Amino acid sequence: MASSAMNTCKLQVDIEKNNPHDARTQWVLNAPEPPSPFRVLSDSLRKTISRCRQIISSLRDQPCTTLLFSLLQVLFPILAWGRNYTATKFRKDLLAGLTIASLCIPQSIGYATLAHLDPQYGLYTSVVPPLIYAVMGTSRDIAIGPVAVVSLLLSSMVQKLIDPATDPGGYTKLILLATLFAGIFQTSFGLFRLGFLVDFLSHAAIVGFVAGAAIVIGLQQMKGLLGITHFTTKTDIVSVIKAVWEAIHNPWNPRNFILGCSFLVFILTTRFLGKKKKKLFWLASISPLVSVVLSTLAVFLTRADKDGVKIVKHVKGGLNPSSIHQLDFNNPYIGEVAKIGLVVAVVALTESIAVGRSFASIKGYQLDGNKEMMSIGFTNIIGSFTSCYVATGSFSRTAVNYAAGCETLVSNIVMAVTVLISLQFLTKLLYYTPTAILASVILSALPGLIDINEAYKIWKVDKLDFLACVGAFFGVLFASVEIGLLVAVIISFSKIILISIRPGTETLGKLPGTDLFCDVYQYPMAVKVPGVMIIRVKSALLCFANASFVRERIIKWVTEEESEDGKGNSKSTIQLVILDTSNLVNIDTSGIVSLEELHKSLSSRGKQLAIANPRWQVIHKLKVSKFVDKICGRVFLTVEEAVGCKNEC
Amino acid sequence: MASSAMNTCKLQVDIEKNNPHDARTQWVLNAPEPPSPFRVLSDSLRKTISRCRQIISSLRDQPCTTLLFSLLQVLFPILAWGRNYTATKFRKDLLAGLTIASLCIPQSIGYATLAHLDPQYGLYTSVVPPLIYAVMGTSRDIAIGPVAVVSLLLSSMVQKLIDPATDPGGYTKLILLATLFAGIFQTSFGLFRLGFLVDFLSHAAIVGFVAGAAIVIGLQQMKGLLGITHFTTKTDIVSVIKAVWEAIHNPWNPRNFILGCSFLVFILTTRFLGKKKKKLFWLASISPLVSVVLSTLAVFLTRADKDGVKIVKHVKGGLNPSSIHQLDFNNPYIGEVAKIGLVVAVVALTESIAVGRSFASIKGYQLDGNKEMMSIGFTNIIGSFTSCYVATGSFSRTAVNYAAGCETLVSNIVMAVTVLISLQFLTKLLYYTPTAILASVILSALPGLIDINEAYKIWKVDKLDFLACVGAFFGVLFASVEIGLLVAVIISFSKIILISIRPGTETLGKLPGTDLFCDVYQYPMAVKVPGVMIIRVKSALLCFANASFVRERIIKWVTEEESEDGKGNSKSTIQLVILDTSNLVNIDTSGIVSLEELHKSLSSRGKQLAIANPRWQVIHKLKVSKFVDKICGRVFLTVEEAVGCKNEC
Repeated sequence: MASSAMNTCKLQVDIEKNNPHDARTQWVLNAPEPPSPFRVLSDSLRKTISRCRQIISSLRDQPCTTLLFSLLQVLFPILAWGRNYTATKFRKDLLAGLTIASLCIPQSIGYATLAHLDPQYGLYTSVVPPLIYAVMGTSRDIAIGPVAVVSLLLSSMVQKLIDPATDPGGYTKLILLATLFAGIFQTSFGLFRLGFLVDFLSHAAIVGFVAGAAIVIGLQQMKGLLGITHFTTKTDIVSVIKAVWEAIHNPWNPRNFILGCSFLVFILTTRFLGKKKKKLFWLASISPLVSVVLSTLAVFLTRADKDGVKIVKHVKGGLNPSSIHQLDFNNPYIGEVAKIGLVVAVVALTESIAVGRSFASIKGYQLDGNKEMMSIGFTNIIGSFTSCYVATGSFSRTAVNYAAGCETLVSNIVMAVTVLISLQFLTKLLYYTPTAILASVILSALPGLIDINEAYKIWKVDKLDFLACVGAFFGVLFASVEIGLLVAVIISFSKIILISIRPGTETLGKLPGTDLFCDVYQYPMAVKVPGVMIIRVKSALLCFANASFVRERIIKWVTEEESEDGKGNSKSTIQLVILDTSNLVNIDTSGIVSLEELHKSLSSRGKQLAIANPRWQVIHKLKVSKFVDKICGRVFLTVEEAVGCKNEC
Repeated sequence: MASSAMNTCKLQVDIEKNNPHDARTQWVLNAPEPPSPFRVLSDSLRKTISRCRQIISSLRDQPCTTLLFSLLQVLFPILAWGRNYTATKFRKDLLAGLTIASLCIPQSIGYATLAHLDPQYGLYTSVVPPLIYAVMGTSRDIAIGPVAVVSLLLSSMVQKLIDPATDPGGYTKLILLATLFAGIFQTSFGLFRLGFLVDFLSHAAIVGFVAGAAIVIGLQQMKGLLGITHFTTKTDIVSVIKAVWEAIHNPWNPRNFILGCSFLVFILTTRFLGKKKKKLFWLASISPLVSVVLSTLAVFLTRADKDGVKIVKHVKGGLNPSSIHQLDFNNPYIGEVAKIGLVVAVVALTESIAVGRSFASIKGYQLDGNKEMMSIGFTNIIGSFTSCYVATGSFSRTAVNYAAGCETLVSNIVMAVTVLISLQFLTKLLYYTPTAILASVILSALPGLIDINEAYKIWKVDKLDFLACVGAFFGVLFASVEIGLLVAVIISFSKIILISIRPGTETLGKLPGTDLFCDVYQYPMAVKVPGVMIIRVKSALLCFANASFVRERIIKWVTEEESEDGKGNSKSTIQLVILDTSNLVNIDTSGIVSLEELHKSLSSRGKQLAIANPRWQVIHKLKVSKFVDKICGRVFLTVEEAVGCKNEC
């Protein structure tokens, strides 16, 4: 080891002879000009165009049918993976499809009620969207359909425009219009490769938002569980608890509550058993359907609806009717509805892509975010023509789909066909289904949405992230779903701004036995160099928002350092201030002005300023603005070399 | 040189024996825990408290009178510098004070007209505020009084609430109330050390905003210059040009225009002469006053006002009257006025501190931002009690003050006393002053506000900054003053977010003859290490907004690198991906999740992930979230050492 180090040393010495320190500074100063923002933009455009051309030219040589088939394969991935589809896979998909269908039917009806729509709209949404997604989607596990959070979000926003109780027809029209807009937005996000928009809700914010929404959804179920007829339309916890409080202080019928709770206990018990013993997994999956069947039978046989047990009553049967004529673009609320569509589009995509990615990562395949957006968007556009409301990938059913051993999206087709058959033949049987059971089916799905472990992990790792999480949670709980979302986005972005422009600075010292200079607090063994103050800015930007603070801080530090050490020891007077700019990605005109003022201020005290390891944009701007000339070219590749210059000066 | 390098090498070898590579990794991994945000906050609070205690305890030992005097000295710096005040200094200050007074009187009347106030309010604002600031301010050069941009901003915002033409009394009350609020905001900024708020308007944005405001102000002067009676209340360029167009197509009187233009030419000529010959500087300074006197005399002698020359008419004389009874807090617009106060407070402080800093930097003394905010705030609070509107440091008069050789703030006192005397005895003489002259005095001050050279410099250095500059400029010009400000702030902050979360990555290569790894595009001589891909994120944050993009980019690069090189050369397969995190200041939970997914994805392809040079917060969070364990502790102090680990693995 020592000898090899000796060899390296010799090499080093040779290189140092030929390539002395000045040459390296020249490397820094004579770096090629970095591309301007316009250049970057035009390069990126040119790349996209040339890629398109490449694809087109590669296709041009092929016969027309192959070309068409390639195009279709891109649009409909089922044509690609469908060719390798086997009977074994189908057996697995059939089983998984039937399992999610049994979960999907009660959930769909419940979520439609949550969205203040007639029950059949939930079932419609579980027919067309899964079929469309099955031929277009790139995931293998996602189960598409109505989901709790989106249902809540839609109803809470649309009912501000039209009250579903007084004008259910107009309300449904707005929901369908919002679905169309959501679909159009999602498709265009995909087309224009705006996948990053989904990333604007941070992980922590989503955890808080979903947990808050779960509690709000749970509270909404009190209406069904307690059999309350008149309930508040607000979603915040205070209004809902007040409504529940008033309801149970009027004469009320406990039968609904007893029925709902007993089946809730049944469903939760089977789920607990299913988790304990993998073999009993099927029991947990079909228990919601079993509950529905058993309770419906019980009500039918005892005619408990006459004793005050609330029932679903008429569910319109038959295939999805066309709803194109219901999409009214002359609606006075069109602008509002478009906004709702945008919010719902982002939330729905966030949920779907998050759940799709997590299962793709488990199975080890890649999910194409932009492709996913286009498929879900197209799904919702077609959905809005066929009486469906916003569909997306469901957390709970996707997990069941995966656990039931699905292989491909065929399980979605199986589910859709099953729901279709139910719609055609079995809706009459749902007449006596107690609404309390639907509430308990929804309630049983909620604990999975509240992830306390994850929240604890966030708290441990990042306190500010936890703040975003808690902000979203309480925003949803105490204000409204939209406010919760807004709070989450604002906190997330404020955090970015805060950290980016945080005017922190750190003093560097030399690590013993190396040429490295590191933060003296992070590495307590680092030793400060006498007579030199080495400072690094704790931010990627030296800009208008932090530049003058950084300048003042450095001057203050230099003054303090001198007054402290200067008492007896005149040697430790700072002669050189080195600004390590290695982590400064960029600088703006205010930053440069501030550096100029710092240089002037230091010069007037007889100190010199040197810059070490500037990045591409930074050194370019410092050169263009003639700052390099002002500090007599004291720009160095490393802090070590900058320290070395002290003796030369 | 070679022998000294040889010695260093020997030392290096010794250290390497005792301190091998593992030990250094331990330095990284066993860094002390970084302080949590709460800790940082409480530390900062404790520091402030202990500093206060220190001051109090140091004062406690002193006699009561000394203590009182020290306190007074902090509040009123004049007590400190006043003791060294000499007759020589006073002679200079007297001259400077008289010079700025001669400029101030016509400007004050003009700016009051711009703010849609009676002329005397401008003069009032040039009496009390300079006196208060003189005893409290820390600058030595600032000339306090009404300024163009603030006058325009105030009038454009307040006239939306009350029309000054129909209810001048109510309008004036609102202006005074806005002044009080501005003063309260400014004082509290100073008290709570929120000096950074002033930095939220970036340098580039200010350049654009001020230039746009100058043009708008210039266009407003068309009213006076053309003698138009009915003029638009809007400030955007389209409305104003339309109003001017309409006015000159109706029968109009060219006397105003000829009078105004000839004196404008006179003022500009004297200024040009003053710049050419330093000795003629006084001519440029008094030419506005000379113009006023000459034109007033001319109108009085020829009674040109009967021929259509618009005159100022009655200016109320006498001392500033009290206006406490006019501050009505039961005003229905109180909320709006508070908002206006906030905006005006920030803009006024920005102008004053910018101008104060630039002259402080020329003379080589330090300006205390927080102290300045308090003095200007207090100035405006007292101002609102004495019929003054918002006062701040003026660009043009401060420059004249400096050029006239002012030594201290006594020049402000001289100016205030001069204006006071004029108010008391000379207002009647202003009766015949033509309004066209006031317009030309204001117009002559505008060219100094449009800094084309600076705009060109911004364009050269930073294209995005230039966008903020142009955005503010056109926002003021085509929309309104507030919109221009808003555009400037939004563009500035969007730029920060854009750069901070910009999901850029760069490949690093080894610089020949060093241990350094740098961007291969910035340093074309850098050589890539075969079998290793070294990547650095071009941002200070790996967070929700860029983490998944960075992950996908790295995976894509690794795939591309392999498919390119893998054709014939099987050796160049990437075995190790090193993430150089040296410029990552922080990471959030989404970032960590993304790194985990990256690690999983690379592992499944048989590649390893290593982290080099993590900063304090980053390594702490990676440890807490157990990511370090997941990558088997492959964390290194430098990229060089991480590359070395390839052979070990």
